[in-house]
Amino acid sequence: MTSVTLAPNQSLLPLTATTQAGHLTIGGCDLVDLVQQYGSPLYVLDEESVRQACRQYRQAFQTYYPGQSQVLYASKAWSCLAICALVAAEGLGIDIVSGGELYTALEAGVSPQLLYLHGNNKSRAELEYAIAMGVTIVVDNFLELELLQQLPPARIMLRLTPGIECHTHEYIQTGHLDSKFGFDPNQIETALEMVAHSQLNCVGLHAHIGSQIFELQPHRDLGSVMIKWLAIAQAKFGLTFTELNIGGGLGIRYIESDDPPSIDAWVRAVTEGVSDACAKANLPLPKLLCEPGRSLIGSACVTAYSVGSTKTVPGIRTYITVDGGMSDNPRPITYQSSYRALLANRMDEPATELVTIAGKHCESGDVLIRDFPLAAAQPGDILVVPATGAYNYSMASNYNRLPKIAAVLVNQGEANLILKRETYQDLLRQDYLPQRLQTPVLS
Amino acid sequence: MTSVTLAPNQSLLPLTATTQAGHLTIGGCDLVDLVQQYGSPLYVLDEESVRQACRQYRQAFQTYYPGQSQVLYASKAWSCLAICALVAAEGLGIDIVSGGELYTALEAGVSPQLLYLHGNNKSRAELEYAIAMGVTIVVDNFLELELLQQLPPARIMLRLTPGIECHTHEYIQTGHLDSKFGFDPNQIETALEMVAHSQLNCVGLHAHIGSQIFELQPHRDLGSVMIKWLAIAQAKFGLTFTELNIGGGLGIRYIESDDPPSIDAWVRAVTEGVSDACAKANLPLPKLLCEPGRSLIGSACVTAYSVGSTKTVPGIRTYITVDGGMSDNPRPITYQSSYRALLANRMDEPATELVTIAGKHCESGDVLIRDFPLAAAQPGDILVVPATGAYNYSMASNYNRLPKIAAVLVNQGEANLILKRETYQDLLRQDYLPQRLQTPVLS
Repeated sequence: MTSVTLAPNQSLLPLTATTQAGHLTIGGCDLVDLVQQYGSPLYVLDEESVRQACRQYRQAFQTYYPGQSQVLYASKAWSCLAICALVAAEGLGIDIVSGGELYTALEAGVSPQLLYLHGNNKSRAELEYAIAMGVTIVVDNFLELELLQQLPPARIMLRLTPGIECHTHEYIQTGHLDSKFGFDPNQIETALEMVAHSQLNCVGLHAHIGSQIFELQPHRDLGSVMIKWLAIAQAKFGLTFTELNIGGGLGIRYIESDDPPSIDAWVRAVTEGVSDACAKANLPLPKLLCEPGRSLIGSACVTAYSVGSTKTVPGIRTYITVDGGMSDNPRPITYQSSYRALLANRMDEPATELVTIAGKHCESGDVLIRDFPLAAAQPGDILVVPATGAYNYSMASNYNRLPKIAAVLVNQGEANLILKRETYQDLLRQDYLPQRLQTPVLS
Repeated sequence: MTSVTLAPNQSLLPLTATTQAGHLTIGGCDLVDLVQQYGSPLYVLDEESVRQACRQYRQAFQTYYPGQSQVLYASKAWSCLAICALVAAEGLGIDIVSGGELYTALEAGVSPQLLYLHGNNKSRAELEYAIAMGVTIVVDNFLELELLQQLPPARIMLRLTPGIECHTHEYIQTGHLDSKFGFDPNQIETALEMVAHSQLNCVGLHAHIGSQIFELQPHRDLGSVMIKWLAIAQAKFGLTFTELNIGGGLGIRYIESDDPPSIDAWVRAVTEGVSDACAKANLPLPKLLCEPGRSLIGSACVTAYSVGSTKTVPGIRTYITVDGGMSDNPRPITYQSSYRALLANRMDEPATELVTIAGKHCESGDVLIRDFPLAAAQPGDILVVPATGAYNYSMASNYNRLPKIAAVLVNQGEANLILKRETYQDLLRQDYLPQRLQTPVLS
């Protein structure tokens, strides 16, 4: 990678990003060429960035944690065949939250022994499917515990609500007490007692405190809270747990002022919390699991759009319109999330304009980025939004009947289609027109 | 329909809703039976409610407007074959905002002469498709005007930003000046001049001030603003416009305290605004078009869910969990929209519990309704959320890889499947696994 003067927002790009002849390349592929070949909008996922993030997690556990460990990819961030296979090839297991995510991971060839099923309202059918496959069930509530006792014996963990507050969007804060997830502190002992008197193979405890978190202290505290419950399970109920899953939550950088801890620092804080608590409680180190999603995949992907019309409202703002929007990236309209962008075909030009990126949808709220500096854009330019790997495709809709967009995996100059673009015909695959409405109507 | 004591929230149900033996029926179909046959969650759309709303619009125009009129269904509210065919059978045209909505309307058998294509960033391919079919293009901006002059002659209207503020969620407020849509007052004359010197067949003007609006005055004001521009087009540019499209925006009742005007009152306000302004300007009455979406379809549909686990957080709230959530109804998490619910199998029981309805998704923000009274619920009960016809299916996602849910159209005891439930296999229809990632991974 030759040293170049970075335009604003270039530091948000995937690891392999370079500029060549004024064009952005990722994984050795020119973004302008990719759009020409695969169309627009397009998710471009950098294989090397994903692999590096997987390795950073695994290596940090080896460095800081003397016990066993297993990193699971939280596939709700982006569940598709290629990503499941990719992280599995790097030695990760997968955290799944539905029958659909289970099906996807299995079809990708991931071993069921490395799959953990979450969810606050798993259906009986989902539980039966997971048990038949040999997947570990992370039990959320009493109804599920009762249901599991009517089904073939399952390998389970119990999800606890640890009562830890952290700073993130309230929609994705899960560890505080007012949460729909998990057993509360006042419910845990009853749950442990039920487990102790059941045929269920309960191997440990799970907690998850939230998502897109930049603080380390809540994750450090989580270790001591969870080890306390591991000790109670053993002392009061004779349950010897060998696994502890401390969830995920490490944030990523969406805009330049975001300053998340590194993967290494996060793993160090988490493992120190657990090791210290075990030493104090005189307990052996459990096998430690964690479930990163966003921090594995988020920064590895960019979305490439084609620039369309521009509208300047005098004294207010300039709108630049692209050919996607809230259907391929619902995070700005749902969480008021911030992003930045750059022009893949004008990487050498200075960011002189203050612009707002509007999507294509018939909705005023369909604005991807507000009031940020960009090089002067022309219709047909390729606008690239970094950090769109997590919760973009996974939350994508067909709003306004827009076909879901394509995704390519790029690596060393090669691009592989991993998600085919939908067609108009695809949009009608679920539609039926009742016989009595089939007469063509003439005006 | 026999008179019964209404439980709370029953007045939010579709027109044909009754209670029989403690069960909710819509369109003569028992909701519990429907879920048994078609599964859960399930959209249940009442044909009679849709037809009545269409007729109310058309009849009100006939009553209050001496000129010609055409009601268009804003299909972004819910675009599917059955609904397009149904509203067309009631004499409505269709407002479309993408190639996908155009394709859907055509496949439903709707006449292209009754289709109007909107959008702030229509692609060249969408414009070519629409022109080839004979659809009217509602032109949004200068780039589009330039593009149209390179294509076969089109029948067009011009979209204006009228500069009218109204009270609704800022995401769906479109008529104020800081909007990505339409020509601003300072751009309109340039646009009219371009049209006057082009081969484009421009038949009129369009504006839309927003969505879910309960006020009538902004809609009344819109008439005089638009007629002023019609007069300017004629006087200054010699353009005789025969059509005026005043958009949609009439709100509906989601919770009991919502008090929207009737369809009749809305049409009366709109038509009086236009008629008065025409009289003052000494202009003939234009053919008047409007584009209701939500008020045609919103109240006609309910979503039926199965109740799962319950979690009481002492002193805070009781969560009741259902088998759907933000993937089938993204409005609460996106717009903080309020809904109410009732239990289809406990219609005769009093609403004694204060509950919060949580969805199935692995996301704390996946809460459909907060802190409202409901009859005491048990797992397996059928929870019905009214007023889910608009912007539910149309904005639906596969978040957490949940398959999109099914929809039935009910009428006089008959139910027709109009949207088939997706399967796990369907979720992988766009997926490719690159060759080099295909080796099964063993742990």
